[in-house]
Amino acid sequence: MKATPQVLKGMRDFLPARMILRHFVTDQLRRVFERFGFEPLQTPAIEYAETLEGKFGEEADKLIYKFEDRGGRAVGLRYDLTVPLARVVSMYPELVKPFKRYQIAPVWRAERPQKGRYREFYQCDVDVVGSQSMVADAEVVTVAYTALRQLGFSSFRALINNRKILQAIASRLGISAELAPGVWRIADKWDKIGAENVRSELAELGLSPGLIDGLFETLDLSGDNAEVLDALATRLGDVPIGAEGIQELRDLFNYLALAEVPPEYYHLDLHMVRGLEYYTGPIFEFVVETPRIGSICGGGRYDHLIGLLGPTEYPAVGISLGLERLIDVIDALGMAPAEVRNTVTEVLVTVFDREYLQDSLAVAASLRATGVNTEVYMGLDKLAHQLRYASRKNIPLVVILGPDEISRGEVVVRNMVTGQQETVERGALLSAIQGELDNATQATPTL
Amino acid sequence: MKATPQVLKGMRDFLPARMILRHFVTDQLRRVFERFGFEPLQTPAIEYAETLEGKFGEEADKLIYKFEDRGGRAVGLRYDLTVPLARVVSMYPELVKPFKRYQIAPVWRAERPQKGRYREFYQCDVDVVGSQSMVADAEVVTVAYTALRQLGFSSFRALINNRKILQAIASRLGISAELAPGVWRIADKWDKIGAENVRSELAELGLSPGLIDGLFETLDLSGDNAEVLDALATRLGDVPIGAEGIQELRDLFNYLALAEVPPEYYHLDLHMVRGLEYYTGPIFEFVVETPRIGSICGGGRYDHLIGLLGPTEYPAVGISLGLERLIDVIDALGMAPAEVRNTVTEVLVTVFDREYLQDSLAVAASLRATGVNTEVYMGLDKLAHQLRYASRKNIPLVVILGPDEISRGEVVVRNMVTGQQETVERGALLSAIQGELDNATQATPTL
Repeated sequence: MKATPQVLKGMRDFLPARMILRHFVTDQLRRVFERFGFEPLQTPAIEYAETLEGKFGEEADKLIYKFEDRGGRAVGLRYDLTVPLARVVSMYPELVKPFKRYQIAPVWRAERPQKGRYREFYQCDVDVVGSQSMVADAEVVTVAYTALRQLGFSSFRALINNRKILQAIASRLGISAELAPGVWRIADKWDKIGAENVRSELAELGLSPGLIDGLFETLDLSGDNAEVLDALATRLGDVPIGAEGIQELRDLFNYLALAEVPPEYYHLDLHMVRGLEYYTGPIFEFVVETPRIGSICGGGRYDHLIGLLGPTEYPAVGISLGLERLIDVIDALGMAPAEVRNTVTEVLVTVFDREYLQDSLAVAASLRATGVNTEVYMGLDKLAHQLRYASRKNIPLVVILGPDEISRGEVVVRNMVTGQQETVERGALLSAIQGELDNATQATPTL
Repeated sequence: MKATPQVLKGMRDFLPARMILRHFVTDQLRRVFERFGFEPLQTPAIEYAETLEGKFGEEADKLIYKFEDRGGRAVGLRYDLTVPLARVVSMYPELVKPFKRYQIAPVWRAERPQKGRYREFYQCDVDVVGSQSMVADAEVVTVAYTALRQLGFSSFRALINNRKILQAIASRLGISAELAPGVWRIADKWDKIGAENVRSELAELGLSPGLIDGLFETLDLSGDNAEVLDALATRLGDVPIGAEGIQELRDLFNYLALAEVPPEYYHLDLHMVRGLEYYTGPIFEFVVETPRIGSICGGGRYDHLIGLLGPTEYPAVGISLGLERLIDVIDALGMAPAEVRNTVTEVLVTVFDREYLQDSLAVAASLRATGVNTEVYMGLDKLAHQLRYASRKNIPLVVILGPDEISRGEVVVRNMVTGQQETVERGALLSAIQGELDNATQATPTL
């Protein structure tokens, strides 16, 4: 039976032009991650359902692609990279701590696909496991900052908060432990639904107007990071968890400055709460201001999650960049550098006829040997047809070999962008090609 | 509930040291594939079951991880990269032909795991879709050859055969179309079970002793590639499909020579049949002789497969390198270059105490800015403990900052391999580091 070829909803094919851009982004991320000493880790796509369900509990049921394998085991596809990391840390106690790893890999979520939300998408995670030092928290924020800068992002900032401070605020205002998660879930929508709607939702939840006023007053504290922390210290300094959270952020901001992250790129934002309940300390969210695409990166400290999934508890902190969002911004702002073309091929070598094919193959072999990405035209079509192939594929240069050129030991180099062509001796071909390619490509700044 | 952390049988975690080697291999493969103008493609892990079952029919049932998604659709995980390629070519007729793509990606097979066989493993495929030219067949063989050489392989060869020649042999000997597949399946085991067992299995299948003799006589033709083709031409030249197959291999060998693949690296082997029944022309199998690991790469021409899965037929040829096998050989022969370390980190910067942390962070930032993969020790432990961390992680260099060094504007650079250390001025740190790293790393030859 012939299947109608189609791709599942929420899943995507990445044809070459898209894939070249994705490679460009993930190569840069990998380079930055390794620059900070994060090591690559890879885990299977399929995990025991029990492992996957450990973190989210009931919610997992909606989220996970679950099925039974041939051995009758309940298994599923990973929906994030944090659970596999926690499993790995639990399974291999021999891993030297702190364990700094990155993983750039697809995850799967059986949710309804929406604009910008897919059922298969890539996460790019860095985490430090086994350190309570705020140096670790500062480092994952610095890595994300450096990666975004390296990709050419400029209009973004990291919003930073601390779950301990939120806990202290709730405790000071007398918001019960049962009520608190609901309160923060509502507060987190501040940017989306506005202060007035937050107020009315909090009222619906059962908070008194006085309580809501008190909450707003604290969350709205303004000033630079140090000023807000000072104001918080006045209000919460005598709540032990509050004092702890404030000190953590003081350290964190101090280390970010020492790591040379410019102050305009991070900002204490008490409204930013983040959904996942497993965070225990500092939390981060990178937002892009132009285009107004919102969060492209999030993370935080989760000191109890690994102990929840395995036999030993390890403090941990991490951050996750969403590849799809990064690409959306790069597209919207036209940020891809000139070297990211629609094709990897730099040169097409034409073929005159069967007799002269050997010359074309020899020229291609010599170009490849010197590092030029080279195609030989596969077929014996007319030159116009071969040039059309190069043009449709956006190959920037064509090397034309006809009997006259071959007999004179020459080749013609045609620039497909300008349409100009020059005749060069075979021995000078490589330098002619390099010159043309350098013209066509504007170098990107390296880290 | 706390899950016991475990990984599914036949699935593997790749911890950093392993993953660094895998990255090294896939980076090299990618570079070689692109050098020949193959473009990256990415497809979803999950496909409609109908798409996956198109190729193998009933056999698929045993092979594929199949399940029902939340929308009640029958879906499955891809078990190879050829079916997704065929689907992509069918779905996007706008793709310029010939479409040359590579894909390096995991596939999943619900088979019983064995030594060297996994349920999740990586394939590295290059294919040319839309060309009947033997230039395409020669190119995929050349790509695989170049990739293996680039990785340092030397003791290997490509076995080459042609399904058309096998068909002509069967036709000449009067082996029926029903019997032929069984005959070739048995012949394919020649290397494994030996000539005598092949003979007895063929007899069991119902071939007469005379027929078996005739078959053996042809398959055993010896000599260099041209001599065997000449001998085949004498026997099969008047069987049209045989003449075609012989001419294809003459062209293929000619193009391999023009592409500068040395003759000792490929060899016409009439016993090599390959299992997949969809091949229609030349077939290839790369075998490694030392260690005796057998096939590491296989492929061939499949001119009808895409038409089987989609509305339009396209001629195609491709080859697939198995990442796990490549790694097995690299391990067995100790072929990984010195630059492939157990860790990506090149330098650890120590921390004296909280007060001097800022100096350590500043030194680390300056090293990273110049491209050195650098960690700052996360914690305030004793120096001996920090050195032990570097040693356990195999970090080659440690930059030690104590109050004395800091006050004099100096640092100590310790080589963890030799144990030697030198005091250098801060301004001379980078060149000292570069010198030590160059000593530690033997450059690999570039393509």
